[in-house]
Amino acid sequence: MKVKSESSKLWKNCIGAISNLIDEAAFKFTPEGVKMEAMDPSHVALVDFNLPSKSFEEYDVEETQVLGVDLIEMDKVVSRAKKDDKFVVELDEEKNRLVLKFEGASTRRFSLPLIEVEGEETPQPELDFSTSAKIQAGIIQDGLKDASLVADNVRFGATEEKFIMGAESDTGSSQMELSKSSEGLKELKVQKPSKSMFNISYLDDIIKAVSSSDFIDIRLGSDLPIKLDMPIGDGKGQLKFLLAPRIEAE
Amino acid sequence: MKVKSESSKLWKNCIGAISNLIDEAAFKFTPEGVKMEAMDPSHVALVDFNLPSKSFEEYDVEETQVLGVDLIEMDKVVSRAKKDDKFVVELDEEKNRLVLKFEGASTRRFSLPLIEVEGEETPQPELDFSTSAKIQAGIIQDGLKDASLVADNVRFGATEEKFIMGAESDTGSSQMELSKSSEGLKELKVQKPSKSMFNISYLDDIIKAVSSSDFIDIRLGSDLPIKLDMPIGDGKGQLKFLLAPRIEAE
Amino acid sequence: MKVKSESSKLWKNCIGAISNLIDEAAFKFTPEGVKMEAMDPSHVALVDFNLPSKSFEEYDVEETQVLGVDLIEMDKVVSRAKKDDKFVVELDEEKNRLVLKFEGASTRRFSLPLIEVEGEETPQPELDFSTSAKIQAGIIQDGLKDASLVADNVRFGATEEKFIMGAESDTGSSQMELSKSSEGLKELKVQKPSKSMFNISYLDDIIKAVSSSDFIDIRLGSDLPIKLDMPIGDGKGQLKFLLAPRIEAE
Repeated sequence: MKVKSESSKLWKNCIGAISNLIDEAAFKFTPEGVKMEAMDPSHVALVDFNLPSKSFEEYDVEETQVLGVDLIEMDKVVSRAKKDDKFVVELDEEKNRLVLKFEGASTRRFSLPLIEVEGEETPQPELDFSTSAKIQAGIIQDGLKDASLVADNVRFGATEEKFIMGAESDTGSSQMELSKSSEGLKELKVQKPSKSMFNISYLDDIIKAVSSSDFIDIRLGSDLPIKLDMPIGDGKGQLKFLLAPRIEAE
Repeated sequence: MKVKSESSKLWKNCIGAISNLIDEAAFKFTPEGVKMEAMDPSHVALVDFNLPSKSFEEYDVEETQVLGVDLIEMDKVVSRAKKDDKFVVELDEEKNRLVLKFEGASTRRFSLPLIEVEGEETPQPELDFSTSAKIQAGIIQDGLKDASLVADNVRFGATEEKFIMGAESDTGSSQMELSKSSEGLKELKVQKPSKSMFNISYLDDIIKAVSSSDFIDIRLGSDLPIKLDMPIGDGKGQLKFLLAPRIEAE
Repeated sequence: MKVKSESSKLWKNCIGAISNLIDEAAFKFTPEGVKMEAMDPSHVALVDFNLPSKSFEEYDVEETQVLGVDLIEMDKVVSRAKKDDKFVVELDEEKNRLVLKFEGASTRRFSLPLIEVEGEETPQPELDFSTSAKIQAGIIQDGLKDASLVADNVRFGATEEKFIMGAESDTGSSQMELSKSSEGLKELKVQKPSKSMFNISYLDDIIKAVSSSDFIDIRLGSDLPIKLDMPIGDGKGQLKFLLAPRIEAE
């Protein structure tokens, strides 16, 4: 098998973000595309990476291959990508290694040992979200950073009129309000007011996968998980993220 | 009460600088403006922050209020300001909190607990300075950094012809000379040659309040404190700083 | 004696790089130019710094002077150079100090104590290199960084067709190939294929002396030292570097 992307940026950003949460993962290369689903060690977060074959410049996968890699090591390699490098992923069957190549001014070839990754069943919960919003990543990043000044958890909330992120503790409080007229809020559908609390650092880690001007689809409920749907590869692929809520003490 | 500044930059820079030296302070909001005077814990430095009501976009203070805050926490909040945010300070009397708001693409609201700050008498010494100079902040910053390579203290000196900063130790010496013709020296009035030594880090901390292209009024004597007068809020307000000298061993 | 360079950049870069490897050195100022030769403490690397008098704006050296300095302290001083500063080196015979001056918006003068540096004989080995190449510094820097992901040592190799840098370990492999058609490879003369292994950090340190767009002359053999010839001072001077190979275990 051999697949080639016109740009290495998407891989650099996604692997960089995912490896903050998950150490090892199995990439499934099928004739239709590349897929990777994994949970973080504490089973709080679910990552679903999806790149269809059409988002590649070259895509040659005849048989499905499941390739386990150490994401920390893979991150070190993809971090070495230069802006205009093309990015090739191949399998070296003989040596049992994943080959990652950057093609630019020079050709740079890295190989990583394949590892056994336990094929864990990732849950696909049916969730009855009451809020759906499309918000610019940079605004969410700011809301997370603001909240981190006062607490480890952030409350997400939505009413028909506005989207809210906030935190409260003895050292103070932070609150960000995004009204329907804001440029950073493209869509806000609220069946009934939602409010859930989440760990800040998980969200902060994963959101690094997209640039601050990208819009993210957010699904929210009350004391329900949050679901982020981030466009990757010019919107042809997706990085989905599901995070369990922290239940607020009364 | 509610006061609104067109830009949050001045607060970000001043609180950032002052909080390096002082942990807690009482801001006095009067109908005429905002004032804060404080000494550092070792009583070596005196800070005097002054913003008249006319430097605000909106200024609504009917009764004088003295509001004590933890400057370290306040610095974390004002550091979150974005370039074009408007900045609002309000009092939440019910919750006994200071409310800081950034108004931009979104509205971000922070609150900080009010604290008791002991109303210390700040001395207002009459000092007979023999030198007065107007020097660009960036040049003073360089002189401090240069001196820090060889020592913890820096000597300021002035003659009719030039302004000098220097340091000396076993590991070497540094000296910066600024002649009257230099663009970075706008004014130099010397009644008699001056020479005093100061701790570098105090000066380095406070000077961060202004940008390197701003001009600072400096008053100097021989074995006397140094006085810095820094323009803030487009010159409508002032940050004054008085630092006691280190007496050089013979 | 007094010598003046139009720019302090060359000194900043070279002393910065050399001081990573060598703590003390003796600069020899002769009527022809400035020279400095030194070995690192473990006698693995040889540095040869050479700036002819014609590369200076002013050059006034009547008698040869050998001036020993602490390179770590000298690095701190030259790091304080500003972009457009002229750079003056003088001897203060009375105080037995080296004087370094930056002339710009202000005049900044530093002095460093002269120290005894043992006049070590630096070997001048006759080496029978089989490969000569001219390669852009940035490409070598990337090859070193790539290799450092997987190992402490990097293999340099050359065939008639291409120049190769690579590393291999349990955690993976890295390999950079530069073909004759690459813009970053200006010249490649190979009498017979060469292959030698070197410690990455020595090379990484010294190569910081040049900018990534500069071309470096590289001499290589099989299990022989590597020789780097880096142009400095608009190509009028040279920084030469010789590094002993690591012999690969069979």
